[in-house]
Amino acid sequence: MKDKLNVIKVGGGVVENAASLASLLRQFAGMDGRKVLVHGGGRLATSVATSLGLESRMVGGRRITDEKMLQVVTMVYGGLVNKNIVAGLQAKGVKAIGLTGADGDVIRSHRRPPKLVRMDDGTEQMVDFGFVGDVDKVDAQFLAALIESGAVPVVAPLTHDGEGHILNTNADTIASSVAQALAEHYEVTLTFCFEKAGVLRDADDDSSVIPLIDEPEAGRLIAEGIIAGGMIPKIENAFAAIHKGVRQVVITHSDNIDGSRGTTIK
Amino acid sequence: MKDKLNVIKVGGGVVENAASLASLLRQFAGMDGRKVLVHGGGRLATSVATSLGLESRMVGGRRITDEKMLQVVTMVYGGLVNKNIVAGLQAKGVKAIGLTGADGDVIRSHRRPPKLVRMDDGTEQMVDFGFVGDVDKVDAQFLAALIESGAVPVVAPLTHDGEGHILNTNADTIASSVAQALAEHYEVTLTFCFEKAGVLRDADDDSSVIPLIDEPEAGRLIAEGIIAGGMIPKIENAFAAIHKGVRQVVITHSDNIDGSRGTTIK
Repeated sequence: MKDKLNVIKVGGGVVENAASLASLLRQFAGMDGRKVLVHGGGRLATSVATSLGLESRMVGGRRITDEKMLQVVTMVYGGLVNKNIVAGLQAKGVKAIGLTGADGDVIRSHRRPPKLVRMDDGTEQMVDFGFVGDVDKVDAQFLAALIESGAVPVVAPLTHDGEGHILNTNADTIASSVAQALAEHYEVTLTFCFEKAGVLRDADDDSSVIPLIDEPEAGRLIAEGIIAGGMIPKIENAFAAIHKGVRQVVITHSDNIDGSRGTTIK
Repeated sequence: MKDKLNVIKVGGGVVENAASLASLLRQFAGMDGRKVLVHGGGRLATSVATSLGLESRMVGGRRITDEKMLQVVTMVYGGLVNKNIVAGLQAKGVKAIGLTGADGDVIRSHRRPPKLVRMDDGTEQMVDFGFVGDVDKVDAQFLAALIESGAVPVVAPLTHDGEGHILNTNADTIASSVAQALAEHYEVTLTFCFEKAGVLRDADDDSSVIPLIDEPEAGRLIAEGIIAGGMIPKIENAFAAIHKGVRQVVITHSDNIDGSRGTTIK
């Protein structure tokens, strides 16, 4: 029987605020067993970029990463955010080790080619996202060896192309890729933490969480328009992970990273 | 018999320049056997700080690290510089893994208390260096396990106090502490790379390198004023490492990181 492992993904909003960061560290340190933390860091990069006089350009919720912005996200995600989380976890006795995809060649990606993107006004446009990576492979062997040595990987949303370039990479995608790769070695639960209590029947009512969604049910909820907008790719992403061997995916509030409440996808 | 291991320290001046960084990566990737790279990053932090509207304050060549400056060095050393080196080495087939002292609890330090410092004008003054760490211990076991797994640690000049704080730490001190700790497991050569060809008999003549210095000879050279100024603590640091079991220390130019030329201290 495989050992259990939790992959917890927290968004940038959680780590850039001192109170929610403290809550995250307390909850994560308190989780028993094998675990991996994947973090975002979006808005902090925007504020550092602004201080440096750089303009942040987003298309469809994704950052355009030119060379200067790549430097900023490398500094902010790989340095500031990652090392503050690592030092904070160490203070709670967690043997955290910060990683970007470049460290130990853990996550290899390729630069995303220019892509046709549907704009808010309904038109389509070719968009070059710049130094943005789409994940090719995760070295689960190396991660598992670190985990078995007692270390707890803390993964920043950066990968590399194997040719010397760091690439900005979506943290949800990293969490999902890491969970899928580690599913060969462990019985993996992947938990996406965000600012809502889970998948909601009524978007304005946090008490309307749908506790369990399987694939036929997800289809019905999408057809009824209950799952809509940005939640659709999250759900698709969750089932992709399930199909690749992840035991279950939980979508829940960042106050509840152990996934005892929220929506379970399986 | 112990396996050989090289600890190479390069200063900030080498890593902030694209041409010298490329040369460093090529040389380091070309070195056979077990190895560790320790890097500085001083001037790059100063330029990022300036872009952010922060003033850099130095006393006796050491940076005063207030809270905002700590954020800058964490971003620049732990993020930008470290990850660029790691990605660059990966492109050359080196399984580099970037570490600050917080990662894996590799280097623990304590915040330096305010200290009496001799100023340029000869007066003495109490100086609070801020978030600056003096090294307490290095986890050689964890480093050795990484190295034996085929990884090559790339260490940034940042440590942590075990209470959640990252601390800015002198890269020479980190290199020396890491070399001393690893001397229990390996036959260690510690190489300090800088902008001169070695310890020079005539400071203005790069061809006047003194090839070998033992402790009595060092005493004579200091008494004669040939070793003077900032070279004195470097030499003292070198002998401290030798006394703690490091096989030899080499002081050489960053074009020559394998230490085939330069000054050997033993």
